[in-house]
Amino acid sequence: MVKADYGIRRLVLDVLKPHKPSIVNVALKLSRVDGVSGVNCILSEVDQETENIKVIVEGVNIDFDELSGALEDLGAVIHSVDGVVAGRKLVEDVETPQDK
Amino acid sequence: MVKADYGIRRLVLDVLKPHKPSIVNVALKLSRVDGVSGVNCILSEVDQETENIKVIVEGVNIDFDELSGALEDLGAVIHSVDGVVAGRKLVEDVETPQDK
Amino acid sequence: MVKADYGIRRLVLDVLKPHKPSIVNVALKLSRVDGVSGVNCILSEVDQETENIKVIVEGVNIDFDELSGALEDLGAVIHSVDGVVAGRKLVEDVETPQDK
Amino acid sequence: MVKADYGIRRLVLDVLKPHKPSIVNVALKLSRVDGVSGVNCILSEVDQETENIKVIVEGVNIDFDELSGALEDLGAVIHSVDGVVAGRKLVEDVETPQDK
Amino acid sequence: MVKADYGIRRLVLDVLKPHKPSIVNVALKLSRVDGVSGVNCILSEVDQETENIKVIVEGVNIDFDELSGALEDLGAVIHSVDGVVAGRKLVEDVETPQDK
Amino acid sequence: MVKADYGIRRLVLDVLKPHKPSIVNVALKLSRVDGVSGVNCILSEVDQETENIKVIVEGVNIDFDELSGALEDLGAVIHSVDGVVAGRKLVEDVETPQDK
Amino acid sequence: MVKADYGIRRLVLDVLKPHKPSIVNVALKLSRVDGVSGVNCILSEVDQETENIKVIVEGVNIDFDELSGALEDLGAVIHSVDGVVAGRKLVEDVETPQDK
Repeated sequence: MVKADYGIRRLVLDVLKPHKPSIVNVALKLSRVDGVSGVNCILSEVDQETENIKVIVEGVNIDFDELSGALEDLGAVIHSVDGVVAGRKLVEDVETPQDK
Repeated sequence: MVKADYGIRRLVLDVLKPHKPSIVNVALKLSRVDGVSGVNCILSEVDQETENIKVIVEGVNIDFDELSGALEDLGAVIHSVDGVVAGRKLVEDVETPQDK
Repeated sequence: MVKADYGIRRLVLDVLKPHKPSIVNVALKLSRVDGVSGVNCILSEVDQETENIKVIVEGVNIDFDELSGALEDLGAVIHSVDGVVAGRKLVEDVETPQDK
Repeated sequence: MVKADYGIRRLVLDVLKPHKPSIVNVALKLSRVDGVSGVNCILSEVDQETENIKVIVEGVNIDFDELSGALEDLGAVIHSVDGVVAGRKLVEDVETPQDK
Repeated sequence: MVKADYGIRRLVLDVLKPHKPSIVNVALKLSRVDGVSGVNCILSEVDQETENIKVIVEGVNIDFDELSGALEDLGAVIHSVDGVVAGRKLVEDVETPQDK
Repeated sequence: MVKADYGIRRLVLDVLKPHKPSIVNVALKLSRVDGVSGVNCILSEVDQETENIKVIVEGVNIDFDELSGALEDLGAVIHSVDGVVAGRKLVEDVETPQDK
Repeated sequence: MVKADYGIRRLVLDVLKPHKPSIVNVALKLSRVDGVSGVNCILSEVDQETENIKVIVEGVNIDFDELSGALEDLGAVIHSVDGVVAGRKLVEDVETPQDK
């Protein structure tokens, strides 16, 4: 039996961007990417020319390449992919003593 | 298929304002902006002439320009946009070890 | 279309009052103000002649002027308005890295 | 229109009492006071002759005078009223940056 | 009208006991006491001859004397009663600034 | 009236074991013990020859002797029983100021 | 009566991998392993050649060997198994004073 494929369900990204366009525009643009049902953009660090934003994207079968492309179009770049959830069930983090 | 557009669902703003009008009036005025279904204004810092308030606005297709305009009319200015949620699903922040 | 107006939904107040009347009487009196559906009074600081209480009031279209008047009648004064929620949806605070 | 009156819904008390009667008996006695639907007594500090207990009482139209009287009958005294909730809605505390 | 009496609904006990019988046997024995619907025994401190366990008992009209007797039969003794809940509603603790 | 007996509902164990068999095998074996409906094994400390694991077992009328036997068969030993829940209701821990 | 076997329900793994393939690909590949209904991959530490990721996998009768094999195929290795849940009920961790 072939499993239905839910693909990427959530991404947590550290994104570096110039001050313009604003995070309002980044959030709106990413919310229109294929597979995305919602976006949360959070300002994490502001420097003179650039700022770091944390981007949480949720959906079903999120198209990662389209998402990266959309960020590039805005002059932004993915600095690191800090979390990925995939599959039918949206699995959350579970704390263990090994997390220190 | 064209996706229904839910636009801006939540904004978290750091707003600088004179002591008058009071945050009661700011909250009431913003609650009447197009697309806004609720507003939370929180006093964060009080100086001699001004005060900083944290403003959380939630709704569907929130009109950011009308919102900024409403704040300007009150003599207030958006100091920074600290968070934006967009899309059908109201995505919440997710902690990761990279948040430090 | 005119939006139904829900007005003030919640107030968080820092109130300065003499020891008498007691916070029991303050809570009872405020619970009868127009638009108020519930009141929580919390003792935060006790001085020789006065005490500070945190007052949380919730309801729909809370009448701020009647509320201030009720407090004045009790010999109390609003020291600061620390939070205001307005609109149809009772929006809660959302933490961001900018809260420090 | 006259509002239905729900009176006192919750009290948080700091009570000073001798070691006897035990907090088991205090809790049982207070649970029978008019308007009280439940009582939680928590040992907070033990001294040689006395002990401090935190008393949380919940109900509808709690009779504060009967409650104080019941405590007096047990040789206990209300040291301070640390919280009062009144009205139809049981309003909870809301944190703000002004709480420090 | 006579109120239905729900008596003791929860007890939090600090119990001192020898290493034998084990906390497994203590929990099983207490779960059979009149009025008890469940027991949680937690090891809090181990000394050479004895150990302290925290015992949380929940139910309706818990028979405190039978409970103390059951503990005595096991060679254990109630060191202090740290919390008691009584009445129809299982009232939980509520934090206030006076808790320090 | 004889009370239905639900026996042991939860055990929290500190278990010492050699590195082999793995905690995957420990969890699978314990999940088949009489009365057990689920097992959570958490790595807490790793030494050169041995490791400590925290084992949480939940069910109804858990057979403690069969459980100990199963652990022994795997070359593991119960170092301490840190928590036991018994009875119809799965009672949770309740914090008090005496927990320090 | 033979118990239905739910096998492994959750694994928490500390995985060491080269920078390529990305954690997006790791999450997608693991989500297709037999018995897996969801995967969460979290970046925990980045070094020059390698990175550590925390992998949480949930499902029913998760095939641990297929999972390890899938990781090996990606050039990754399980550094330690930090948590395992097995059985019908997904048992969560329970804090005790012995956790320090």
